[in-house]
Amino acid sequence: MATKRLPPEFELIARYFAPLAAGRPGALGLRDDAALIDVAAGRQLVVTADALVGGVHFLDADPPDLIARKMLRVNLSDLAAMGARPFGYVMTVALPAAIDEPWLASFVAGLAADQAEFDVGLLGGDTAATPGPLTLSVTAFGDVARGAAPPRRGARAGDLVLVSGTLGDAALGLRSLRGQLADLPAVQREFLVDRYRLPRPRVALGLALAESGLATAAIDVSDGLVADLGHICETSGLGAVVEAARLPLSAAAAACAAQPELLQAVLGGGDDYELLFAAPPDAAAALAALAGRLGLPLTVIGRMIEGAGVRVEDAAGREVRVASAGFRHF
Amino acid sequence: MATKRLPPEFELIARYFAPLAAGRPGALGLRDDAALIDVAAGRQLVVTADALVGGVHFLDADPPDLIARKMLRVNLSDLAAMGARPFGYVMTVALPAAIDEPWLASFVAGLAADQAEFDVGLLGGDTAATPGPLTLSVTAFGDVARGAAPPRRGARAGDLVLVSGTLGDAALGLRSLRGQLADLPAVQREFLVDRYRLPRPRVALGLALAESGLATAAIDVSDGLVADLGHICETSGLGAVVEAARLPLSAAAAACAAQPELLQAVLGGGDDYELLFAAPPDAAAALAALAGRLGLPLTVIGRMIEGAGVRVEDAAGREVRVASAGFRHF
Repeated sequence: MATKRLPPEFELIARYFAPLAAGRPGALGLRDDAALIDVAAGRQLVVTADALVGGVHFLDADPPDLIARKMLRVNLSDLAAMGARPFGYVMTVALPAAIDEPWLASFVAGLAADQAEFDVGLLGGDTAATPGPLTLSVTAFGDVARGAAPPRRGARAGDLVLVSGTLGDAALGLRSLRGQLADLPAVQREFLVDRYRLPRPRVALGLALAESGLATAAIDVSDGLVADLGHICETSGLGAVVEAARLPLSAAAAACAAQPELLQAVLGGGDDYELLFAAPPDAAAALAALAGRLGLPLTVIGRMIEGAGVRVEDAAGREVRVASAGFRHF
Repeated sequence: MATKRLPPEFELIARYFAPLAAGRPGALGLRDDAALIDVAAGRQLVVTADALVGGVHFLDADPPDLIARKMLRVNLSDLAAMGARPFGYVMTVALPAAIDEPWLASFVAGLAADQAEFDVGLLGGDTAATPGPLTLSVTAFGDVARGAAPPRRGARAGDLVLVSGTLGDAALGLRSLRGQLADLPAVQREFLVDRYRLPRPRVALGLALAESGLATAAIDVSDGLVADLGHICETSGLGAVVEAARLPLSAAAAACAAQPELLQAVLGGGDDYELLFAAPPDAAAALAALAGRLGLPLTVIGRMIEGAGVRVEDAAGREVRVASAGFRHF
């Protein structure tokens, strides 16, 4: 069956994208070329942008609704690291000829599902044709009390380093999709693949860290633990020590203990979308209480020190070498 | 000479993009994944987004600095239609392997020139690799007094329809680049090509319209006069009549009077980036004074009427057929 031509841009917007802007008056029904956003007194707007390219950040054969949800969630994760309450996004899509209406309908259904889950709305955007791969760009918006966003550069020597949830699941999920980890029970492989495909942005944790002021610096783990902790170190002018034995693992990741690449997946794998943050030692009790309230583990994995760079140590204090210090696009 | 690999993403950002964020504290030196924006009390944020794709919106061989400036200006034009004062933008770039550092240096120089001209700064963004064409996405930000943005849907029957500057120059410039209009003197061809390559967003006019409240509806002419006036008609629930004899032409466009496509270029050509707006008849004197103050022609080209659609009439009141009702991406 030949691929049907898509309808003209205005019909496309009216049919697929305008419903995503319903109930957001500032979006002006996507009929203007711009949106209006009100920011309440005492609050700051938080803005983040990401580009996703077919064949680079996702595979053309990936389910369109999952591509959409991952795209949104990656941006919500960036907002969470700033302690922001997300409320909307604008999106540009460059569509190759192979994209048809069923694909778009699934893509939009994925956006709608996550808009409902995270209470965000589409505020504007642009569609274009491309002779290349599907290329998506999202600019996401949140707001935060003025001055409350934990800056990446705010860590202090002696701070604890904490991470939410578990590490390495997404990297192991990607390996499983590539045919590795075949010995693992199916239920554990499915858990890992789901973690790769559908990040859980830690929005509630980010809000709580901004409100409580407990974190001195925060980042989301997208490039990999060592790389992202390296960003905190570099901007804060400090070093960090991570104790490998403390790294929080899911049951599925722990079941990969025999895999030689497990530690590399945990330390350098990326795509975890957990929050990594620094906090003074006297915040430990409050953070433990917060973890209980959110039902989300917060694990102390190391500490900030004078110096530079990230040193990972085994239980005997010996340095653990990390092969990949983050995902390189080029 | 082989194309040199680009440096890693963080070096790329530090070397080329971070200087574009200098003096914009909310950009956090582009070292965080998000930016902070303060909106003053009583003001609204105005947000617009555009995607530009190599081979679709520009040619790969186009000068990189002009690609950059056109990208920015197209967005500033959308903000101008909302009466916004522009202040910044975030940008995502998907870079094919053929992009090298000299290309990037020129691209960034173009951005820097227009940042200075329009007092805007880079606030954030993302870079990725792509196996496809260069794909750029910009989300631009401005602010406007709350409620002062002229909405596209606000036109009333009996309103005058006005346009700034001259129409059709960009479309004729594109024809000249394609080898047409060879009879035209070189100086006039260069004028038209420049108008195609470097839009003049009508920022000062947009600000004045929002401050004065003279316009009931506004849009920038990007798809073509008839298509964009059609958008005002559709969202306002009205029709419009345009008098072809009143359409403002540059000397270079007027010199194309013998070209059969002149009127089509003026009515449907797109890429003019002039402001098209509706205003009540009693605003005419104030608008004439404003045109004088800005040194920018504002020409009454027709009127809004009850009904639907755009009717173009010649001097005898006969309908003029318009072949293209705007640029279709699909």
